Formats: sequence, C-alpha cells, structure tokens
Amino acid sequence: MSVVIVGSVAFDSIETPDRQVEKALGGSAVYASLAASYQSSVRLVGVVGEDFTQEYIDIIDRKNIDITGLEIVDGGKTFFWKGRYGSDPNERETLVTDLNVFENFQPVLPEEWKKSKWVFLANIDPGLQLDLLGQCENDPFVGCDTMNFWIEGKPKVLAKVLERVNVLFINDSEARQLSGETGLIMAAREILKMGPEIVVVKKGEHGAFLLTEDFLFITPAYPLENFLDPTGAGDTFAGGFFGCLAAAGDVKTKNLRRAMIYGTVLASFACENFSVENIRDLSLDTIKERFNRMVDFIRVDKEEI
Amino acid sequence: MSVVIVGSVAFDSIETPDRQVEKALGGSAVYASLAASYQSSVRLVGVVGEDFTQEYIDIIDRKNIDITGLEIVDGGKTFFWKGRYGSDPNERETLVTDLNVFENFQPVLPEEWKKSKWVFLANIDPGLQLDLLGQCENDPFVGCDTMNFWIEGKPKVLAKVLERVNVLFINDSEARQLSGETGLIMAAREILKMGPEIVVVKKGEHGAFLLTEDFLFITPAYPLENFLDPTGAGDTFAGGFFGCLAAAGDVKTKNLRRAMIYGTVLASFACENFSVENIRDLSLDTIKERFNRMVDFIRVDKEEI
Repeated sequence: MSVVIVGSVAFDSIETPDRQVEKALGGSAVYASLAASYQSSVRLVGVVGEDFTQEYIDIIDRKNIDITGLEIVDGGKTFFWKGRYGSDPNERETLVTDLNVFENFQPVLPEEWKKSKWVFLANIDPGLQLDLLGQCENDPFVGCDTMNFWIEGKPKVLAKVLERVNVLFINDSEARQLSGETGLIMAAREILKMGPEIVVVKKGEHGAFLLTEDFLFITPAYPLENFLDPTGAGDTFAGGFFGCLAAAGDVKTKNLRRAMIYGTVLASFACENFSVENIRDLSLDTIKERFNRMVDFIRVDKEEI
Repeated sequence: MSVVIVGSVAFDSIETPDRQVEKALGGSAVYASLAASYQSSVRLVGVVGEDFTQEYIDIIDRKNIDITGLEIVDGGKTFFWKGRYGSDPNERETLVTDLNVFENFQPVLPEEWKKSKWVFLANIDPGLQLDLLGQCENDPFVGCDTMNFWIEGKPKVLAKVLERVNVLFINDSEARQLSGETGLIMAAREILKMGPEIVVVKKGEHGAFLLTEDFLFITPAYPLENFLDPTGAGDTFAGGFFGCLAAAGDVKTKNLRRAMIYGTVLASFACENFSVENIRDLSLDTIKERFNRMVDFIRVDKEEI
C-alpha cells in the first residue's frame, strides 16, 4: 500500500568537524520518502522553489515515489537550512534557516490520495498537520513528528493534532518537554494520554523505544563505525518505520517490532554519509542484511523458569 | 563454580533530589557479590574496620557467599563515601571519600581460593589487581573494572593488568578516555588491542554492549519507572554477569548474551532502591521473570532474504 508523506524538501548546507557539504538535497519528506520507498510506494507532498534542481528531482522521482504532490513555486526559492555539528553530533548549531516557499506552504492532497490508508506528517506547523488530517477521507493510520518550536509555540493546535494521530515520533528531550516528565517511559505514558495510541521516542545514538498502553519495544541504535552526519536520521527512521507497516498492512506487535528495526537500520545508513547519499541507492536485500545483523547484535533467548 | 570477588566494602551516604540515606551498606564487592550469589557461590575478599556492623555482616554472610576473605581491622574505620545525585542521575557529586582501612588494603587470597576458575577484580588500585593476578594459580577467567582515577594516575600498571585479564568492564566516558576514541565501538576495539579478549562498555541508562574480536552484543538498560539511585549499578552488573558465566561454566557467545542480560536485570533491581535493599532478597525466579520480560522488550525475528 501507499504511504502519503508530507514534509519539507530542502537544500541543506552542513558542517561537521572534518567535512562539509553545500546545498545538498535535504528535507524531512525527502529522507522519509526515500526510506519508505524500499518497501512501499510513496506519495510525496511538499513544496520547492524554481531554484530546485533537476538533479535533485531525479533523485526523488523514482519508481516507488509519486511526486504529483510536489508543488514548484514559480519565482520562489527552496527552503534552505545550514547547520554545524560539533565533535559530539548531538551538539547541533543552526546557522541559517531560510523558510522561503516553505513559509506559505499550504499542502493539498491530490484527490485520489485522500483515501490513502497510511499517512506520515513530518515535522511541520501543527496547524497544517490538522488541516491535512481534515483532508483525509478514509480514517487512515496517521503518524506525525513535531519539535520543541511547536511544543512551545503552538501547544493548543498541537494538542488537537495529538488527539487525532495514531503514532507520534518524538525525540527524548522533546518528550520530556511535552510531558513534563524526566523519566522517558513516564514521559511516553503521559503522551499516550494525549491521544496517540503509539509513541516512538527517538534517542539518537542511544536508540529508540515504542510504547503503547500494553506493549513496549526497545532497540539500541545500529552500531556505526563510520558515522558522519545525523541530519535527517529521525525522518529516515519514521520513513523506514512507515514503509514496513504499510507493506505489512497492519500494526500488530510483530510488525511494530519489525518497523522499529527497519527504522533503526535505515537511519543508520543515513548517518554514514551527507544528505541522502547512502539511502538513495539501497536495495531491500542490503537493508534486510543489516536488519539481520542487527538482530544478531540484540537477540537473546528466554530463560526457563 | 565459585567466583572470587575482590573490591570495597563500604558505608555509603547518598542524597538524591527526593530522599537520602546515611551510612548504608555499600562497596563494589558487596554489590557484585550479592548479584553473583543468585547463580553461583561467591568468595568475597575485602576489608572493613571495627565499626562495621553485625547487621551488615549478616546481609553478606549468607549461604552462597563465603566471607572468609573479609578482613576486619582492629581499631580501623570502614571506607566511607558520601555523594549526591542531581535530577539527572548521571550528575554525581562526591562529597566525602574517607578511604580509612581501604587505604592500606593488601588483599590476600585464602590458600584454597587461589585455584578458583572465576575471578572478578572490582575497581581498586591496578597495583593490587596485578598482585591478585599473581596470587591466582589456575589460569582463571578474570574480569576487572577500573576508573578515570587509575587511567590518569597509573596508566602503566593498568596496562599490565589489561594484558592479563579476560574481560574489562568500563563505562562510556572511561572507555573514551582510555582509548582516545570518541566512537564507543572504535574505543572498545582499541581496548581489545590492549589485552582483554572481551570488553563490556556500560552506558548507564542507555544500556551496555559487549565486544570481542568477532562478536558484538548490545542491550538497552531495563526500563525503570521507579528509578531511585544508581550507586553500585555497575558493580551489580558485573556481579550478575559473572554469576551467570560461572554457573554456565564457559564463555560461549550464548552465555555472553545471557550474562549481559543478567547483568542488566540485576543492575535494574539495584537502581530501584538505596544501597542493596532491592538485591538482597531476590529469588532466582524473580530475576528470571524480569530477564524474560526484558527479552520481550527487545526480541525481533530475522527477515527472510
């Protein structure tokens, strides 16, 4: 089945202690769509300016990604982000954020996409997320991401979004901020009370966990020896997660476990290079091989009692 | 089989944001011995002063723990440590360290313990660790712990210890310090080159991993909702790890996986209360039940390729 993915399509300039890249392909919808596309077809909704390059369109316009929902604004400029990472990749400094055409983004689902059963709303204004929820006609399974900026700035609208989504992806510090709880399991429990039936807390290099009312799954991050750039890792995680679920067609716990590992594995590929370099030319077999190596790193049998 | 455990036996005064405790039973040998004793018999080597209480002796002098090696120094005072934790339990401030009788600790293995096959040398002066290695007569499987104080202060003696031990337990920041590597997998690989055939890197609330030349196992921490005090968690981990291996009788990868989870589970009990309150009256079945819950939190099947 298809996953509708709504988010940013961007130029990213990134500095790490050793290397840097200028105006690389980025944006939450790009990372999530590429990650999901290895298991599911994707319907991408986003906006770019006239300056967006054909080279980058060619990367996302592929067999499993339908870019009918990518608006190109005449005379407009594409969302531009510039950031710098320290030797600790958790220390991220934003140097430039030019919203450009993203500032007036009013995403509209193409008519035949409104009945989609799987929808991922990446980190955008919760007002837009709410509007998109209103455009869906078929009671889809909806995931959303958010960030500190909206938790502080638009808490009421965000609360309405949370009442209506099935899964929230959120990082550790934002989970604490949203819930007011320090312990992450407690924080996730509080967030469940706000609406989502599933909360996925992303902890970067420390992995992630998924909590429902009666189910908990925890995974470490995939161990990387050639870590380069964490930009987009969270969106890649969510895309890999959604691609797995849409392909499976349900959210039974067995598939939630699989989705968490697919998300983890796809995110690990993303972190090994700048931009989408390492997630644009994967094969499902390559992804599954890393999936199975990950299972070897974490598997243990139960004890007899 | 028996595990010889050498380390501190102490009075600990601990402050957390909500609660505090005065002169509670503590010390690395105490935590490790109690944790190991649920699966293996333990031979404890340590030192206390005349002020050590019968109440505390009664806690460690139990069926599976032989305290023949616990020296009581007439007129001496027991090692005393006082510390304070912030709302982030990784922020630990040491308020008082009175080494007392521990300052002149010269551990001697009782004659019949020298042939022991399993030995855990908790975090003590690497000179003493080296001396104890010399007392062992039967090529035992030896684990040791260490800390930043020795990495900085006695690097040459520590290097000699590392050449002779089988497994090093070390926390994340100390692994970085010892190896000069930022990435923890790379750090552990560098430490393997220093001698140990197994390195266990402890990451507190973020879990732990075990690396050998050709094997990697990663586990999250057990998720706790009533976390109170991390004091002794690392020693409890090592004790649970060793108790499992000594009971199994070998270090095959299947048992290394089990040992990592036993360590994780025992450490989780330790963190739920002050001192050894939550690890002194467990049953092996209670431990195994949590072990199996942990497996449920992390298990996932391989994908077919």
